[in-house]
Amino acid sequence: MPIRPIEWIPGNRNRKGLTPGYVRLLDQTLLPGKLVHLKIRTVAQMCEAIEVLRVRGAPAIGVAAAMGVVLAAQESRAKTGAALLADVRKAVKALAATRPTAVNLFKGLAHMKPAIQAAWKSDRREYVQSLVVAAVEFFEQDRAMCRAIGEHGASLLKDGQTILTHCNAGSLATSEYGTALAAIYVAAEQGRKVKVFADETRPLLQGARLTAWELMEEGIDVTLICDNMAAQVMKEGRVSAVLVGADRIAANGDSANKIGTYGVAVLARAHGIPFYVLAPTSTFDLSLSSGKLIPIEQRGSEEVTCGFGKRTAPEGVKVYSPAFDVTPAELITAIICEAGIARPDFKKSLRKMISGK
Amino acid sequence: MPIRPIEWIPGNRNRKGLTPGYVRLLDQTLLPGKLVHLKIRTVAQMCEAIEVLRVRGAPAIGVAAAMGVVLAAQESRAKTGAALLADVRKAVKALAATRPTAVNLFKGLAHMKPAIQAAWKSDRREYVQSLVVAAVEFFEQDRAMCRAIGEHGASLLKDGQTILTHCNAGSLATSEYGTALAAIYVAAEQGRKVKVFADETRPLLQGARLTAWELMEEGIDVTLICDNMAAQVMKEGRVSAVLVGADRIAANGDSANKIGTYGVAVLARAHGIPFYVLAPTSTFDLSLSSGKLIPIEQRGSEEVTCGFGKRTAPEGVKVYSPAFDVTPAELITAIICEAGIARPDFKKSLRKMISGK
Repeated sequence: MPIRPIEWIPGNRNRKGLTPGYVRLLDQTLLPGKLVHLKIRTVAQMCEAIEVLRVRGAPAIGVAAAMGVVLAAQESRAKTGAALLADVRKAVKALAATRPTAVNLFKGLAHMKPAIQAAWKSDRREYVQSLVVAAVEFFEQDRAMCRAIGEHGASLLKDGQTILTHCNAGSLATSEYGTALAAIYVAAEQGRKVKVFADETRPLLQGARLTAWELMEEGIDVTLICDNMAAQVMKEGRVSAVLVGADRIAANGDSANKIGTYGVAVLARAHGIPFYVLAPTSTFDLSLSSGKLIPIEQRGSEEVTCGFGKRTAPEGVKVYSPAFDVTPAELITAIICEAGIARPDFKKSLRKMISGK
Repeated sequence: MPIRPIEWIPGNRNRKGLTPGYVRLLDQTLLPGKLVHLKIRTVAQMCEAIEVLRVRGAPAIGVAAAMGVVLAAQESRAKTGAALLADVRKAVKALAATRPTAVNLFKGLAHMKPAIQAAWKSDRREYVQSLVVAAVEFFEQDRAMCRAIGEHGASLLKDGQTILTHCNAGSLATSEYGTALAAIYVAAEQGRKVKVFADETRPLLQGARLTAWELMEEGIDVTLICDNMAAQVMKEGRVSAVLVGADRIAANGDSANKIGTYGVAVLARAHGIPFYVLAPTSTFDLSLSSGKLIPIEQRGSEEVTCGFGKRTAPEGVKVYSPAFDVTPAELITAIICEAGIARPDFKKSLRKMISGK
């Protein structure tokens, strides 16, 4: 079963009632060296885990925030419903402040809002339980969405094909399955053998540290390459398709994703290889007419010059380090979301995916 | 003045005669952290320096081998001409065994052969001096060749242009100036300001460690990027031309160079940017009709998985790590050598460069 980076473990029923549940969290900062699952029991622990990237990937962070709300209600020592509500709201603020630019974090908290408002009207145990239900529902929605992306994506993959992927759009970034890697997991489940080339993805090496690790855990045949080897691997005829995730997709299909994705798309086109983007409809931003309107975040120079605990470039060297790039729609063969497979003209097909018509 | 990674420092004349000369060697294993020049006085020291890459780059290694022969004659305690010749020949064998695949190493030793053969026929001091003359001549030939490449290359560069380069084809790989970077140094000398984007060049980071360092030392405006950022930088319209070196060039112009070069060439073509290869005629291998005949060396996985003294990929992960790739002639705008600028059709123009007609 694909790796779950985050999961709600319910409490046990004993004579005194129900013991508190907790969040089982895979500490991604220790990967790939160590496989450690943390028991997160307090809001403070959850905030710290989000801040230092023990849990990462937009969908997974949303789930972490939702589950953090449950922890707040569980650990509160409030004697009244009003005091409990105040404690939970304080926790919502703390969780929202961990990584303020992650949209999914706010989506997770927004999903919890109706359950939070109910406050401690009747029974405290029931209140906590209603929060658990809401958080697990959010988790399951994310899981189902990834699964659906995986099934649509898998329909594009044939037995014996080799996929090239960039960065980590896998289980580790979501509740389960991932987006780009979901297609590979589902194809494997369905008995089709697919192999993967994973770009290491400088500067933060998500491909080497996370994608290679989770594919190996799942028994998928994976080969790690440096980013600058992708062209050679394509030239040698070893790549059947490129599958990547996306952080934001404009109305015309232009797709923002981890830096390096655009270059891979250009190379795929030059070698006649299909290039697929796999992402939930929640990443579609139809308010943007094109990818030119997507702002590109610049990262600090240290990730490039000291990325491995050791300085590998001269002191004071200038560094240009965009965190993302935008792949223009004309280089994208199809965009796969939970609602299906959108093909050009994306202006029409993406709108159709969202409206369901 | 461009950096000299290796230089012969003559002895001083005093009452007792001439003190021994030595080789001043920039220890490249300590770059970019420390700038240390070693005094290499013995053949054993020189062999060690070549083996552990204190000196690297095919042309620079050739010079190191030639100078190593001088050290052998200087340090020999032989009393007869025959014994001295035997000592020198033993040193030639030791030097040849340091990095047996480097062609230039053998070229350096071959250049020394006539001077070695002369042995100790008259005066020992004169013999050593004739070896010094031969070694310095070899050094000067390399320097002149790089300078010529730089002058031809600089003629292609306009004031205010920005160059993208990959790996290190600079002073550090040669006696002085380098090949691709020689064009930049000469253009700067001639008063034209050119800026450089340096690909870091995974897995061994020659771009980050060496190219960025030497350009900064020379006061050239350099910005370091990860390899996967080259496409984005080109898309932003920031690159006027790509300049790279070459390890071997086939008769049709197909050029082998550090892994990643081919991908940069595809990206340059997609963005309408000229792509220039700068290399001496000694890298032309007209016996090969095309680049398909150039064998591609595979490197060990550790350079990719533990490249920075720290494991950054799962234990046991499969790695594909070609050391070089071949850029097909159709992606190359021109090949610049010491004899001039060769343009397509390369089958004719490369032959002309060698024959001088």
